[in-house]
Amino acid sequence: MPTFRMTVAYDGSEFLGWQRQPGRRTIQGELEKIISQIVSQPIQCVGSGRTDAGVHALGQVVSFQAKTTIPCDLLCKAINSQLPDDLFVFEVQEAHPLFRALQDARRKRYRYVIEDGRVRDIFDRRYLWPMWQRLDVAAMQEAAKGLVGTHDFMTYQSRGSMRMTTVRTIHDLTVERRTEFRTERIFIEVEADGFLYNMVRNIAGTLAQVGLGKQPISWPLEIIAARDRRLAGETAPAQGLTLVYVVYDDLPNAEVNPDADEDE
Amino acid sequence: MPTFRMTVAYDGSEFLGWQRQPGRRTIQGELEKIISQIVSQPIQCVGSGRTDAGVHALGQVVSFQAKTTIPCDLLCKAINSQLPDDLFVFEVQEAHPLFRALQDARRKRYRYVIEDGRVRDIFDRRYLWPMWQRLDVAAMQEAAKGLVGTHDFMTYQSRGSMRMTTVRTIHDLTVERRTEFRTERIFIEVEADGFLYNMVRNIAGTLAQVGLGKQPISWPLEIIAARDRRLAGETAPAQGLTLVYVVYDDLPNAEVNPDADEDE
Repeated sequence: MPTFRMTVAYDGSEFLGWQRQPGRRTIQGELEKIISQIVSQPIQCVGSGRTDAGVHALGQVVSFQAKTTIPCDLLCKAINSQLPDDLFVFEVQEAHPLFRALQDARRKRYRYVIEDGRVRDIFDRRYLWPMWQRLDVAAMQEAAKGLVGTHDFMTYQSRGSMRMTTVRTIHDLTVERRTEFRTERIFIEVEADGFLYNMVRNIAGTLAQVGLGKQPISWPLEIIAARDRRLAGETAPAQGLTLVYVVYDDLPNAEVNPDADEDE
Repeated sequence: MPTFRMTVAYDGSEFLGWQRQPGRRTIQGELEKIISQIVSQPIQCVGSGRTDAGVHALGQVVSFQAKTTIPCDLLCKAINSQLPDDLFVFEVQEAHPLFRALQDARRKRYRYVIEDGRVRDIFDRRYLWPMWQRLDVAAMQEAAKGLVGTHDFMTYQSRGSMRMTTVRTIHDLTVERRTEFRTERIFIEVEADGFLYNMVRNIAGTLAQVGLGKQPISWPLEIIAARDRRLAGETAPAQGLTLVYVVYDDLPNAEVNPDADEDE
């Protein structure tokens, strides 16, 4: 049975998150419903990770298996013609038969956007965290440096999650101010080999405390060392968070290398 | 009684247009309700023009009169603290006592955005007209040239409006393609001394016909000459339209020139 890989964007505002839940509007639920109709069989979608209610994606990667001979290009068009307007599939490819979007993800990049200052961009209001006070970006940048590398991010995990290990490696963490048509935004981008529950939102909330001058530059690293979740900053709201892209090892696509499954 | 001038942005998606209507959510209605509460007296807002249901504004200009000693800066903060999140006031200034946002407007600039091609930008979906076919921008640019200048735009007015004259002068009309993160957009910007009802949406709909190759480059100008409304292209949907700015003669602000009202 062929395995397909899709790149999907969504505006999370009106979804109760990624994961299928009976009677609730979720991204996985919508995708499975529509694709199952198109390929005339029940299918199950696997995402590179579950995003929470209200979190957006520009490049979520999704895999599914279906017995179908519909060409990928037509499949993509057919899916988009049925999808609601807050969900879009950029492309569908036939993937290596062993490809699984969750297990094979090697790195992910998230973006968190804060709007600070007195001017609101009402057109993007669903995609940012508005703050009325101006943040000190230089302090946030300095504080962010301490988090790059391999650490036990236990303190940056919201309560209630169960993981084998809370050690993760942040490959890149940037804080950048952008000014556009009178609005001021701070883009926090984090790329890591994996993320704990609410990790980016807790990093954003913690860096915001530094930007507001309420905590010193050394604080984000100190709370890693303290290993006490109660010390961490507030969890930034979901609406400011977007999954930007997911990086995979170079498993050959089935289209590119039709013999690939024979090698495994 | 002091006259105030505000610059206002709104996402028109969830408003039934500018004009106050009992029991309906309109921009004028929301502004008047909130400002009246703040200045503890009934006030009436005048806009540079009425925008239709679903039309947005980046720089709508609004005037009102109120007997108040609240400084403009505080008034602006107070208004924004009460406004819903799809409405924002950039600034409040004390204006010349004779300033009226409607009567004194000399030019307005509107932007119409079409998204063409196979990729949808779901995050901006409320602010553009999605088309699945790629448009020929060069042809649209050529066609747009014919509309610049002083013409009787009767054909570009939707039915049912009553005006003294349907002659208007278009000072600037640009058509430009912009490519951003895999999405393709066409920005049509029109600046004129005034606009008839649905004029920009009818220009956008007409230029789109040319871009789709359904009509020749000469068509937009031909339908002006024909003076028959039934010949015009479809009215483009409201959601793609934004009032960008309004230009006024240099009536001095009361703050800048407190003696101004003595001169009139």
